[in-house]
Amino acid sequence: MAQVVIIMGSATDRPIAQKAEKILEEFNIKYETYVASAHRTPERVVNIVKDAEADVFIALAGLSAALPGVVAAHTLKPVIGVPCASSSSPANLDSLLSVVQMPPGVPVAAVGIGRGENAALLAMRIISISNNDTANKLEDYRKKLEQKTIDSN
Amino acid sequence: MAQVVIIMGSATDRPIAQKAEKILEEFNIKYETYVASAHRTPERVVNIVKDAEADVFIALAGLSAALPGVVAAHTLKPVIGVPCASSSSPANLDSLLSVVQMPPGVPVAAVGIGRGENAALLAMRIISISNNDTANKLEDYRKKLEQKTIDSN
Amino acid sequence: MAQVVIIMGSATDRPIAQKAEKILEEFNIKYETYVASAHRTPERVVNIVKDAEADVFIALAGLSAALPGVVAAHTLKPVIGVPCASSSSPANLDSLLSVVQMPPGVPVAAVGIGRGENAALLAMRIISISNNDTANKLEDYRKKLEQKTIDSN
Amino acid sequence: MAQVVIIMGSATDRPIAQKAEKILEEFNIKYETYVASAHRTPERVVNIVKDAEADVFIALAGLSAALPGVVAAHTLKPVIGVPCASSSSPANLDSLLSVVQMPPGVPVAAVGIGRGENAALLAMRIISISNNDTANKLEDYRKKLEQKTIDSN
Amino acid sequence: MAQVVIIMGSATDRPIAQKAEKILEEFNIKYETYVASAHRTPERVVNIVKDAEADVFIALAGLSAALPGVVAAHTLKPVIGVPCASSSSPANLDSLLSVVQMPPGVPVAAVGIGRGENAALLAMRIISISNNDTANKLEDYRKKLEQKTIDSN
Amino acid sequence: MAQVVIIMGSATDRPIAQKAEKILEEFNIKYETYVASAHRTPERVVNIVKDAEADVFIALAGLSAALPGVVAAHTLKPVIGVPCASSSSPANLDSLLSVVQMPPGVPVAAVGIGRGENAALLAMRIISISNNDTANKLEDYRKKLEQKTIDSN
Amino acid sequence: MAQVVIIMGSATDRPIAQKAEKILEEFNIKYETYVASAHRTPERVVNIVKDAEADVFIALAGLSAALPGVVAAHTLKPVIGVPCASSSSPANLDSLLSVVQMPPGVPVAAVGIGRGENAALLAMRIISISNNDTANKLEDYRKKLEQKTIDSN
Amino acid sequence: MAQVVIIMGSATDRPIAQKAEKILEEFNIKYETYVASAHRTPERVVNIVKDAEADVFIALAGLSAALPGVVAAHTLKPVIGVPCASSSSPANLDSLLSVVQMPPGVPVAAVGIGRGENAALLAMRIISISNNDTANKLEDYRKKLEQKTIDSN
Repeated sequence: MAQVVIIMGSATDRPIAQKAEKILEEFNIKYETYVASAHRTPERVVNIVKDAEADVFIALAGLSAALPGVVAAHTLKPVIGVPCASSSSPANLDSLLSVVQMPPGVPVAAVGIGRGENAALLAMRIISISNNDTANKLEDYRKKLEQKTIDSN
Repeated sequence: MAQVVIIMGSATDRPIAQKAEKILEEFNIKYETYVASAHRTPERVVNIVKDAEADVFIALAGLSAALPGVVAAHTLKPVIGVPCASSSSPANLDSLLSVVQMPPGVPVAAVGIGRGENAALLAMRIISISNNDTANKLEDYRKKLEQKTIDSN
Repeated sequence: MAQVVIIMGSATDRPIAQKAEKILEEFNIKYETYVASAHRTPERVVNIVKDAEADVFIALAGLSAALPGVVAAHTLKPVIGVPCASSSSPANLDSLLSVVQMPPGVPVAAVGIGRGENAALLAMRIISISNNDTANKLEDYRKKLEQKTIDSN
Repeated sequence: MAQVVIIMGSATDRPIAQKAEKILEEFNIKYETYVASAHRTPERVVNIVKDAEADVFIALAGLSAALPGVVAAHTLKPVIGVPCASSSSPANLDSLLSVVQMPPGVPVAAVGIGRGENAALLAMRIISISNNDTANKLEDYRKKLEQKTIDSN
Repeated sequence: MAQVVIIMGSATDRPIAQKAEKILEEFNIKYETYVASAHRTPERVVNIVKDAEADVFIALAGLSAALPGVVAAHTLKPVIGVPCASSSSPANLDSLLSVVQMPPGVPVAAVGIGRGENAALLAMRIISISNNDTANKLEDYRKKLEQKTIDSN
Repeated sequence: MAQVVIIMGSATDRPIAQKAEKILEEFNIKYETYVASAHRTPERVVNIVKDAEADVFIALAGLSAALPGVVAAHTLKPVIGVPCASSSSPANLDSLLSVVQMPPGVPVAAVGIGRGENAALLAMRIISISNNDTANKLEDYRKKLEQKTIDSN
Repeated sequence: MAQVVIIMGSATDRPIAQKAEKILEEFNIKYETYVASAHRTPERVVNIVKDAEADVFIALAGLSAALPGVVAAHTLKPVIGVPCASSSSPANLDSLLSVVQMPPGVPVAAVGIGRGENAALLAMRIISISNNDTANKLEDYRKKLEQKTIDSN
Repeated sequence: MAQVVIIMGSATDRPIAQKAEKILEEFNIKYETYVASAHRTPERVVNIVKDAEADVFIALAGLSAALPGVVAAHTLKPVIGVPCASSSSPANLDSLLSVVQMPPGVPVAAVGIGRGENAALLAMRIISISNNDTANKLEDYRKKLEQKTIDSN
């Protein structure tokens, strides 16, 4: 059973999804990744969400990034939204605002533009609440990150 | 049978919807209006769209305005999207960009922020292609609009 | 007789226009394409619009993109506006806002920045209201789009 | 004969137009003011421009402010564009960008948002090139402005 | 022991914090609320975070909203950031971008501007992963929300 | 005696200035071009402006583009401001807003970002008010522009 | 002799200037305040700057806020710029970008929009480098600020 | 003892830091440079600030640029903040707004995006208040800058 389900709205978002996958593999977390679009394959999105037994969803989308909100509408699990930049975006704001400006009642946890790794790390923080092993790995990760910053001096 | 179906994402968008309804009544067009949210009642949105036999859909939404795109994902009829302003919108750009920046393959016809009347008039232009009566009424409307502008001198 | 008339404000918008033409050809729709500028050849724009017997107009323009609005001012047919990006655009917002923020009474149907294919698909949705053949082709197109998204997994 | 012709796209822009009129009256310049819309009364705009024998045009418009550019397309006199704010404008940028981002070949002289008085003062600077009386009045105006700033200490 | 700790950067953010508190009370979740500023009381922020045994942090801040990121730097629990609007914010973008645009390695879960209730609901989704009671209450909440939307028709 | 004085704030703006110079040469207008900065050589800017006997000034600047406003503060001739893009500009808005948002009393005639040619053509429109030869050349230029657009079909 | 000179571009900026004055009085620092505009009284600005024997300048301005940069061009003392909001500002960005985006070589120390008190506190930090009394007062101020934040709990 | 301490939030900001270092070396000012992140190494930032005996701090950061504000929270010396651009920044506004929009009480002196050299020159202006040698070098620098601008003619 996948503990994290990643859905990207378009195959062009795959490099961002891979940043998340890399972290999940480092943390030894089972995940599944799908390409499914809120606009081109809306029923498939609903089916993936309803069939999943994941603890956390990560949804990536660009442009009018409806995907994270639509996922959040069909599950009560936490949904992490990753806005993806597109070359024709006005000020890189379209996907960001579409992901973060959710109406009251249906939250999406937005991370920064293109931040696949932070989406996965946020999922790890969420899972670690009830999972000591993940919590310990996060602590290790944090220390390595700290050391890497110090070493860059 | 309603020829135009209006769906607003929240009851707070009603004043914008009413601008559209007023035009549709002037043009003697049958319409139905629903409050249904892509985020709070996603199945209801799909049901309304699938059950409708409308020629044109008008979808109004604020914030992360996924509604027009979701409607467009479930019908092949033209969908007119009306972005609605919210007091906390960054630069009034969130709903506008969510409505207009649709990915390739699933178009939404965006009108300006809060432009319920233009959504209805665009629906009338679409219907008038195969309906002379509506075409004539549009011509009358255009003349009145022109005269009103001249009279404001 | 062309059923769709495409007008681009500048020859530099041609790659966007070609995205529209490709769809129209796929759908076997007769179209004509013109370069005509609301600012450099205003009378030519008016003449093209008045002489056309099209059901739908597609107008593409960049910068202060007056063309779609000017076309909409001279016809009562639906006008689809395509904002085109320019390298010196502030935040890619100039053409988008010029196209979408039409005053009450004269609607333009805006699609996303550079979305020539969506402009054509919106035209197909409009035409399909009274044309079963186009409606069927749209259904086929939607299925292929869906399949292509699924296949990208 | 009016030396300056003011055209506003909508009667709601009148307070901005009046700021210009007040300056023109102070400078004893003959002017005419019209409400004419590039979108609702396009032929009227062309007729006003073609019939005028003005040295300078001032065009005011909000939203998708096509008017100054359309005026500039039909005359070779200098055209001053005044973007007007609207409550639903995204970041007050729509009219500003529509007015200022003209394509190469057809210039508009943009002043700041709502700056009717600066439009008139710019017209006075233009006229003063070949008119000593206006030049002298500008010098007086500048001194009063300077004194008023000093007096506000 | 509080399961959720709310920290607001300024007492002026209290109305937003109260939206969160109201939800937490509805869900019978123990919480504590503090005013503590990343800029005016930085050590106090660190102490609150380090002393807390919360599962989730909610951090609210306006302007240069460093608080959520600073909280996330001192804990490995999930941190939900709520950007708060200020009257002098450029386009309401300052707090939003400060909250959401976190560097790789230290995620913050951003919700929309002023969305205290969504911050709490996101916390409930996170907690519900390992807490059936909260999961059931979320299901009830979702149904009421759905019904309320339907009733607004 | 130069009829047009071009001042650029930095030598990096020279390609934009050359677009203006090319038009002025086509129109056989005498001009002088200077590099002078409102921030690095403020007295030189004042001296150039005071010593010039030009009818029109064209001022180009990027970033915090104070130059056009400072020129306008030291002359009563029309001043045309050309905002120049910089790679680190937020949304290409800094120079544009600095040039166009002048306070009441001191107008600058802003053209679009990087539009050196339009600055020169606006100068030609201004000069042509009292100069038939320039007016005729503008008419020729307009016809060529129109023809070029038609030929691009 | 005034140790801090405050210059505001317009008397309408006085409420922001008074926030600075209040801090300077609290710190017992001699200051002088002037209204002087880079656009309406450019020579007066230069004279104030050249005659002053201040250690720090604070310059406030709205719209195309050239004042701080012009002050910085005529002194080598640190210049603190305070962008002031105007009702017609596009996204409150005009004065901010005009103040902060100075070209290389001539720095302005920008504080936030309308932040007169922070301008004065920054001046105090600058003065305190060589003045223990001011340094001690800053320490007291910091403690009061900290206590006030704690007390708001 | 370093008189200026430079802290950059990430090693990727080093080219901007080097622009500052080059100026400091020209002015013969002792400085130290650190990579330390408000998010990845928050305690290290506090330690660097507390241990430093610098007169001025320069803090560089991109994205949600909390570093300058966090430095300012832990010292009463003047802190100069340099926003650094990132490829995924919405409109290059995230770091700028995070740096400049500090809350009342804790000022940061923001310079323009990527302006490492201006940060150093601002530090020199601050130091020169009580240091004649630095004041003289600033005067020489200013003259060279002026001459370089004149020579670019």
